[in-house]
Amino acid sequence: MKKWGFQANQKLSTAADNIIEVVHSKIRNEIDEDDQRPIIPFGYGDPSFSPLFRTSQIAEDAVVEALRSTKFNSYSPPLGVPHARMGIAEYLSKDLPYKLSPDDVFVTSGATQAIEIILTVLAHPGANILLPRPGYSVYEARAACSNLEVRHFDLLPEKGWEADLDAVEAIADENTVAMVIINPGNPCGNVCSYQHLEKVANTARKLGIMVISDEVFGHLTFGSKPFVPMGVFGSIVPVLTLGSLSKRWLVPGWRLGWFAVNDPSGILKETKVFDSIKGCLHVFSDPTTFVQGAIPYILGKTNEDFYRNIISVLKQNSEVCYNKINEMPCITYPHKSEGSLYAMVKLMPSLLEDIDDDMDFCLKLAKEESVIVLPGTVTGMKNWLRIFFAIEPSFVEDGLERMKSFCQRHAKRH
Amino acid sequence: MKKWGFQANQKLSTAADNIIEVVHSKIRNEIDEDDQRPIIPFGYGDPSFSPLFRTSQIAEDAVVEALRSTKFNSYSPPLGVPHARMGIAEYLSKDLPYKLSPDDVFVTSGATQAIEIILTVLAHPGANILLPRPGYSVYEARAACSNLEVRHFDLLPEKGWEADLDAVEAIADENTVAMVIINPGNPCGNVCSYQHLEKVANTARKLGIMVISDEVFGHLTFGSKPFVPMGVFGSIVPVLTLGSLSKRWLVPGWRLGWFAVNDPSGILKETKVFDSIKGCLHVFSDPTTFVQGAIPYILGKTNEDFYRNIISVLKQNSEVCYNKINEMPCITYPHKSEGSLYAMVKLMPSLLEDIDDDMDFCLKLAKEESVIVLPGTVTGMKNWLRIFFAIEPSFVEDGLERMKSFCQRHAKRH
Repeated sequence: MKKWGFQANQKLSTAADNIIEVVHSKIRNEIDEDDQRPIIPFGYGDPSFSPLFRTSQIAEDAVVEALRSTKFNSYSPPLGVPHARMGIAEYLSKDLPYKLSPDDVFVTSGATQAIEIILTVLAHPGANILLPRPGYSVYEARAACSNLEVRHFDLLPEKGWEADLDAVEAIADENTVAMVIINPGNPCGNVCSYQHLEKVANTARKLGIMVISDEVFGHLTFGSKPFVPMGVFGSIVPVLTLGSLSKRWLVPGWRLGWFAVNDPSGILKETKVFDSIKGCLHVFSDPTTFVQGAIPYILGKTNEDFYRNIISVLKQNSEVCYNKINEMPCITYPHKSEGSLYAMVKLMPSLLEDIDDDMDFCLKLAKEESVIVLPGTVTGMKNWLRIFFAIEPSFVEDGLERMKSFCQRHAKRH
Repeated sequence: MKKWGFQANQKLSTAADNIIEVVHSKIRNEIDEDDQRPIIPFGYGDPSFSPLFRTSQIAEDAVVEALRSTKFNSYSPPLGVPHARMGIAEYLSKDLPYKLSPDDVFVTSGATQAIEIILTVLAHPGANILLPRPGYSVYEARAACSNLEVRHFDLLPEKGWEADLDAVEAIADENTVAMVIINPGNPCGNVCSYQHLEKVANTARKLGIMVISDEVFGHLTFGSKPFVPMGVFGSIVPVLTLGSLSKRWLVPGWRLGWFAVNDPSGILKETKVFDSIKGCLHVFSDPTTFVQGAIPYILGKTNEDFYRNIISVLKQNSEVCYNKINEMPCITYPHKSEGSLYAMVKLMPSLLEDIDDDMDFCLKLAKEESVIVLPGTVTGMKNWLRIFFAIEPSFVEDGLERMKSFCQRHAKRH
């Protein structure tokens, strides 16, 4: 008998090692099943578990209606259902100095698939992409799957997590295809100013690279800075904007995302990137058709009260985080969150007795206190912690109290 | 200013050229908008447009209930919702000599994503895969995206579209990883016998390759042969079985598929293919969570009458196809369909006055008669035609009548 001839693409076994789900479930496994207290889920960025963060009735009804209509049981057109593309174009155009056409918008299975498609398209042999550190590890994993080289530039906590644009210039070369900006920030909770985004655009223009702007947390801001979409600078540099229903509408499981081409000068058409995007969309699977069918209603008709209520809970939870973290000597919080659903805080293991690093901290915290926090290592920053606060306010208080007593218990005695 | 540094992965612009949607819309564009007759959609394999092929009320209600429960708004676990995996394992095990475990089943965004994942996993440098001709062009397109070399073996019309297993042995080498079987057949409408599948398993075992069994049309049979899943031979050779809700439940837009590892000897675990599959599933986007939530009800509770009614309409439409096609001298129908939703028939352009080939036939037929048929070229077989017959019975009659008068009008005069 012949030996088995198949073998797997081995990169794939390890590509997911640093994916949040994988690390999260390692930490989750540490929890003591005998602990009667509720598990505090600061670790995983999914707001939908909490009854407070239930999606709007309008969104839910719109999906049911699209399904019941039986008009959306068929295959989706490869680029997306036309009136969904129209609805997204109108939604995004409200914040832009020009109007997007439905032809500029592509509907995807969550922003995750938008990342898949864009990185697949850009991965020509030898190409590299610039990613923020800290960042969102799906970019790194996906780049590994596509043989796209990754180079990191830092986000600077002392400058409110602005991108280090000098570093961007230093690491880019003639094979660099794009830089990624996540705004509002995952994991940093920062919101980029108009001025900073303009500098990003000019830097990218100077380098001849495009900007991929991940705006999955778009409009989820509760500090002093308003949300400005990167597409505002689309006439300086081509911008691909990623978005989804997952966070603003609290339904990551609906798997409905999009990306928009903000490129009024038509550079992506000239350079054939547009054709490759379309080719790719024809081959990849599509998002559920009846969820697409509901898009115009969800984006167009969601009540302002719904948005306002969510922002108000987030603001309150973020305040509690800030105050409580400041009561823990071994953790600092250099830049208070202004947006997204996260706080990024710095751990000083040297002040703790028997904690080696962020991963060790998270494993022991889970075991002793049933509190799950994400180690910064997953975001590219060792000895930081990402705290997700789109959970019940009482859980935020309770979780941070437990974290505080954990820190006290493990503090070095002087 | 620097020249733009990005360029696209050029293979992607052309990977989709032979995708059914692309060719279909070229043909669709030929239709005369002034023709008052209904368009006859023999071209595109989507049954959901016809009121006769409406999905079962149980399936629709199960999805609404899962959505309304708010339990399935969250991200899906990367390998699929556990009770969906359980439901699929139970459904598939009914036809197997052993029981699949939920751990052997992965939920995907349609079978399309299952193809994406499996071909990505198998595409190590230098690898090749054996695909049937005629076949389903998404395999070729996806292989091109992953740099996986494709080699074709023929399906033999004179042998009821059985795979030419001598050819399989001739084209395989030490870099061959797998062969694909589509059963019931797309586009051939054949149903593989137990004996033939056993030979496929033994051939693959001899060559040391796995079998990818595309059973998207599973159980859609109306001839004398019953549907036998390839997994029955999982102890001879590892089999990856693809399935979905799209065809049997008539809802391709729900984007719910799966693949199952039929490998009781654990060879895919030993060879680490299993680990790569899991890694890949962690990085790729997931199917809609609430549709997954409905799976156990859809697979477990759909009424037998629903299945029987669909089969009965398909059988009747298939008969009409067979009889009408036999009235057209320029077309032969070598093997009457026994399953799936297609008839594969052979065109003889030499008997026609001004028709060059299958593509020319389809373009002119659309223009003159508003009848859309898929040229066999898209399936890998020039001068054949694929006729999709899961449409209104009156449309089948009408469409074939128009096709007949088209053939008469274009027949060579003797």
